[in-house]
Amino acid sequence: MALAKNGPPGNAGSMAGQGKKQAARAPTSHDVARLAGVSRSAVSRCFTEGASVAPETRERVLAAAQTLRYRPNLAARSLITRRSMVVALAITHLDNQYYPPVVQRLSEQLGEAGYRLLLYMTHGEASEEPLLDELLRHGVDGLILASRGFAPGLLAQCDAAGLPVVLMNNAGPGAAHASVTGDNLQGGALVAQFLLAGGHRRFAYLAGIAGVSSSDERLEGYRAALVAAGAAAPQVADTRFDYDSALAATRALLAGAERPDALFCANDHLAFAALQAAREAGLVLGQDLSVVGFDNVTISNWPHLALTTYAQPPRAMADAVVESLRALMEAGGEGPAQGEQRRIPGALILRDTARRPARGVFVRADGSHGWAPPASA
Amino acid sequence: MALAKNGPPGNAGSMAGQGKKQAARAPTSHDVARLAGVSRSAVSRCFTEGASVAPETRERVLAAAQTLRYRPNLAARSLITRRSMVVALAITHLDNQYYPPVVQRLSEQLGEAGYRLLLYMTHGEASEEPLLDELLRHGVDGLILASRGFAPGLLAQCDAAGLPVVLMNNAGPGAAHASVTGDNLQGGALVAQFLLAGGHRRFAYLAGIAGVSSSDERLEGYRAALVAAGAAAPQVADTRFDYDSALAATRALLAGAERPDALFCANDHLAFAALQAAREAGLVLGQDLSVVGFDNVTISNWPHLALTTYAQPPRAMADAVVESLRALMEAGGEGPAQGEQRRIPGALILRDTARRPARGVFVRADGSHGWAPPASA
Repeated sequence: MALAKNGPPGNAGSMAGQGKKQAARAPTSHDVARLAGVSRSAVSRCFTEGASVAPETRERVLAAAQTLRYRPNLAARSLITRRSMVVALAITHLDNQYYPPVVQRLSEQLGEAGYRLLLYMTHGEASEEPLLDELLRHGVDGLILASRGFAPGLLAQCDAAGLPVVLMNNAGPGAAHASVTGDNLQGGALVAQFLLAGGHRRFAYLAGIAGVSSSDERLEGYRAALVAAGAAAPQVADTRFDYDSALAATRALLAGAERPDALFCANDHLAFAALQAAREAGLVLGQDLSVVGFDNVTISNWPHLALTTYAQPPRAMADAVVESLRALMEAGGEGPAQGEQRRIPGALILRDTARRPARGVFVRADGSHGWAPPASA
Repeated sequence: MALAKNGPPGNAGSMAGQGKKQAARAPTSHDVARLAGVSRSAVSRCFTEGASVAPETRERVLAAAQTLRYRPNLAARSLITRRSMVVALAITHLDNQYYPPVVQRLSEQLGEAGYRLLLYMTHGEASEEPLLDELLRHGVDGLILASRGFAPGLLAQCDAAGLPVVLMNNAGPGAAHASVTGDNLQGGALVAQFLLAGGHRRFAYLAGIAGVSSSDERLEGYRAALVAAGAAAPQVADTRFDYDSALAATRALLAGAERPDALFCANDHLAFAALQAAREAGLVLGQDLSVVGFDNVTISNWPHLALTTYAQPPRAMADAVVESLRALMEAGGEGPAQGEQRRIPGALILRDTARRPARGVFVRADGSHGWAPPASA
């Protein structure tokens, strides 16, 4: 219902309705108690699930609350229930195309369960000491840690404070904590087999930051599969997980003595920079150089980019995070703040930036092209 | 400092240190009061800026708080100060590349002032009735409305509730409210002059959703400048502000009887879809068709895309939003929840998707190319 500019209609004579100056103060449980002629604790009980209150009292309180447009404040409520219905999301790389749809899905799925997301942009530094302090002051019910890095003591501090945590896309050093990651080892290995089958000979890896598990594990799977097949281990070029450092690193790789003909990138965000460097160097993608990403972000499908990549489905990742976190939060902070380590399966999506092997390519129901090692291989 | 897994060190005999089960309950002001041997209100005064408390009492309270690792809870604090230090951001299009850097900057700038962002993903529908209810229940101090659409009564309801609001990128029907928008009229007009000077003859506009001021105003500026120069008014193709509808709309435009040779798009997000449609139709950009966007999102600079666009600087936008909102919040909800309507100036950035006029092109200090109407024109 649209309200008139000068305050709620229909209660012009009430405490909250005397023009805008008054209306600017939200009505409190005191106001409701006074109008209903009951105690403040009776008002509080009316708005607390499962609390006992006489039917007549409830009726008077609800009528007064409606007149005053009173909404029980979650801050007040959280002092009673010790639940704020707020979940913190600590995240570094909102500039990575992978994260906006993840954040959107997290927000929607948590929203359905009554939770809202409080956003903490971190810089991924190892010293995020102020983070826990702030989380506790805001009284959040849980933490999703999609931060690139965090203080080594943070997880133990969260345990000590009884704050449930789910790590996302970076299992970090917290092997004992709940986490949701992509199928990094498997994905890296499949990319290696795909590039080998495509006849490539000089392999390279465009890495993120050493110590971040997503980048480390993808390299591990890639390297192990290359070496197992008798190929040389890949050259590794480090980046700071951003576009500019990836561009510089790829330029250096392509100008080097041992120019690679196959480049697997720790994620699509880095791969797009690699495409730019390849283009600048005048290389034909899929002929002179094959580039494969990891994530399958929305724009990798654009025909201007058409990136071959290992898909890490953002919805499935977000849904698993919400499921794990809710399970921990609903356990009420009792017991160890631990949980399952979940790996979300992915799939290789063939587009135009990598040469396709003669055998093993298949078409999915959605029209996308995939690849699997031929049975005889 | 890293804490041992089984609870904070150094207070093994205290209330909060008896193993994990106990540590899971955060210490309260009651616990601190008990340990310090003072009243709970003395504890509260110690953690309230400007409140009076005896030096000896303060010392005992702070020592007890340190022993127990007590952090004053913002929920409790907000009942006293009526400030939660939380600002809500209602936003629809996190999939639009323009917004992630804006959200990042908002978070950083608000963070410096001690505020955190609570995220509300909206669907841009006109009925967002639950929004205000939730905002009030969470006790947020302010609202940034970057939602595509919202209930017509929402702004009046916020006024009535004394909740400061700043509209971002959509001045909507709230002409009396604080807003920060790009220089839409000016930008649209400059794009028209640029395309006219480039010798284009058949103009089109790829619109967002009618009623959203950013799209409407950019069209208004574009159309007025075309008509003023004696050109025909542009064909207008509507979208739902998403990639797929923009792709379909551009395909239809390009297949139509009156194929445009100049297409101005309500934002870059739509322009990328237009580039795909042009590519599919086999058109050479800058020759057969010129495409101009609005925003200058990060990826518009990628050589694979190289989009000519009118820049709407996200940092300046975000900073203006924070400045306006803080001014309103610090006025304490007194007086009307209104404020300045601010327009952030932009600039035309020439890249490869639009034909350049013979005269008027200039190079900026950062190496980017711009255009201004030649003095004689």
